[in-house]
Amino acid sequence: MTEGSAGARLLGDVISSIAPLDTRAEGTALARLDQLTKPPGSLGRLEAIAVQLAGIRGSVATIERPAVVIFAGDHDIARQAVSPYPSEVTRQMIGTYLRGGAAINVLADAAGAELVVVDVGVAGPPIEPTVAAARLIVDRIRSGARDFSCEPALTREETIAAVDVGRRVVDELATTGVDVIGVGEMGIGNTTASSAIVASLTGRPALDVTGRGAGLDDNGVHRKAELIDLALQRHRPDPSDPIGVVTAVGGLEIAALVGAILAAGSRRIPVVLDGFITGAAALLASRLAPNVAPRLIAGHLSVEPGHRIVLDELGLEPILDLDLRLGEGSGAALAIPTVRAAARILVEMSTFDEAGVTNRD
Amino acid sequence: MTEGSAGARLLGDVISSIAPLDTRAEGTALARLDQLTKPPGSLGRLEAIAVQLAGIRGSVATIERPAVVIFAGDHDIARQAVSPYPSEVTRQMIGTYLRGGAAINVLADAAGAELVVVDVGVAGPPIEPTVAAARLIVDRIRSGARDFSCEPALTREETIAAVDVGRRVVDELATTGVDVIGVGEMGIGNTTASSAIVASLTGRPALDVTGRGAGLDDNGVHRKAELIDLALQRHRPDPSDPIGVVTAVGGLEIAALVGAILAAGSRRIPVVLDGFITGAAALLASRLAPNVAPRLIAGHLSVEPGHRIVLDELGLEPILDLDLRLGEGSGAALAIPTVRAAARILVEMSTFDEAGVTNRD
Repeated sequence: MTEGSAGARLLGDVISSIAPLDTRAEGTALARLDQLTKPPGSLGRLEAIAVQLAGIRGSVATIERPAVVIFAGDHDIARQAVSPYPSEVTRQMIGTYLRGGAAINVLADAAGAELVVVDVGVAGPPIEPTVAAARLIVDRIRSGARDFSCEPALTREETIAAVDVGRRVVDELATTGVDVIGVGEMGIGNTTASSAIVASLTGRPALDVTGRGAGLDDNGVHRKAELIDLALQRHRPDPSDPIGVVTAVGGLEIAALVGAILAAGSRRIPVVLDGFITGAAALLASRLAPNVAPRLIAGHLSVEPGHRIVLDELGLEPILDLDLRLGEGSGAALAIPTVRAAARILVEMSTFDEAGVTNRD
Repeated sequence: MTEGSAGARLLGDVISSIAPLDTRAEGTALARLDQLTKPPGSLGRLEAIAVQLAGIRGSVATIERPAVVIFAGDHDIARQAVSPYPSEVTRQMIGTYLRGGAAINVLADAAGAELVVVDVGVAGPPIEPTVAAARLIVDRIRSGARDFSCEPALTREETIAAVDVGRRVVDELATTGVDVIGVGEMGIGNTTASSAIVASLTGRPALDVTGRGAGLDDNGVHRKAELIDLALQRHRPDPSDPIGVVTAVGGLEIAALVGAILAAGSRRIPVVLDGFITGAAALLASRLAPNVAPRLIAGHLSVEPGHRIVLDELGLEPILDLDLRLGEGSGAALAIPTVRAAARILVEMSTFDEAGVTNRD
């Protein structure tokens, strides 16, 4: 498969179909906000989110059908002791999502969101559905990404195919009427891949964007950063070629997140990001399609040190800052109620005139 | 009525019945958190909130019946041009709450919370119920607080009676099973009263704790601070006598908030604070009863400059920081979904053992 392949052409189509925000809808939202029964601007960033939602969607409307999508894939880099947990935990946690006992089950339900789990390449055989606390989509490219300390994580064809998994998932959710998507991920080792991606895209030393992941100590963090610097010296991915960066040091679920974010952009569906890994995917997507970044909402600020750097690159301010570092979409799900509330304000509040309230002089 | 009066004795009973947090319930919560299927501590402050809720309530349980209570009262200090809105807006906004067109109607509904509005002393005749988008309680002490630039805002008897209104409201909500209370307020002029209270309690110059309220310009803020400093020089309330401070420069809805916060403390019901005004009331309550502060949750950080000072005094970190400055309980309501989610995590997540997930070495 070459860049002229069907997969690459599809990706090009998605990218070129992502429009700038709808300034007319933003204007409508802004004008209405200043007529509502509250001092102008007194709802602060909730008002900014309401305007952004209007710009993304092209209209002022409530959010009725949120979904949280977890893309899952494994990383052979996990063999290099970059996580206190073994790769088998990826599969076990998916089992927990499907049975309903994980944090994201609680948080997605609290947000009124459907939970969708996508096996893009968990190590071992395909995940088999057991019970129905979450919807499972199996669309695998391969059994885990390769150990990028030894060889490129993926082939370019695999990367493009994984991006297309994300696109297909969002296209299908769009047909069922999903109107906001919280994105999450599961994959032991994927903060290492994300740190490598962000180091490559921003040109920073790995240590600036490398953190404890699921619980490394200081020595572990230094080893992890060293391993990333060495891998980037070895593969020398071109930062102006995001697909090449994922191919060198990324992962299947990260590639799928890129496709999901691009497809949501193309379909005018707001995306609520989770933490560092979905942030790395969003940075890749925004490098492929600059119109993507204004279509993103940062659910929270992770304790991973690279996350603030990613959000600054994307021009995003997080809604929550609760020292989360779990992943699996938890911070996105927690922020969705605030996003929904912002949309409802515009639709449901009365104006000063309607309410018969005296406006300021 | 003297300090030996029935009202003062009741207040004393409430204060003495507020216990420290239940350390056994906190311990149970902490132990369970570390067995749940997530890296230890990875839910950050959500875990801290879950532990605090257990300590407040004395048990680990979900939150099923939140309420948002708006205490409303007027302030003759509003005649001194401390707000861009006239006092009549207090009454008009209550009408909007009752008809369902205000921000708090949207946000309380989004939080699954019952909305209760209490007329403790809106200027003019008692508020009459019209429609039922919110529940109205009329329990008035007088028609607005006096202009404290000329005379004390209240008599000590009025203050104690208004505190008791708040106590009665919470006692009644407790009997209906309400298990978390978001507190809010409405009263044109009440940021001025709150700044005066906080300046008095902390000994800071008024300018440190005075902001734009509903929309003053820089000149207006300076005039407002000057007026507060002058009033405090005139009345010289004793900062070690919180009831005396409210009597001198406070207001009816602020006194009622103090009573509500104390009663919730006595009944082990967690209180989610809104912005600066509810914060000033919480500071008063915590000076009356030091066991109150650990029972409070700060919903958000207001743009009012005195709010951070109040939260630091109380030892609280806000959940949200969205540049809100509306009041009426909006920031409390927005934070309630996060508080509920924290409680659910402890009850609904599986442990590593239950889920069959490999824990870290």
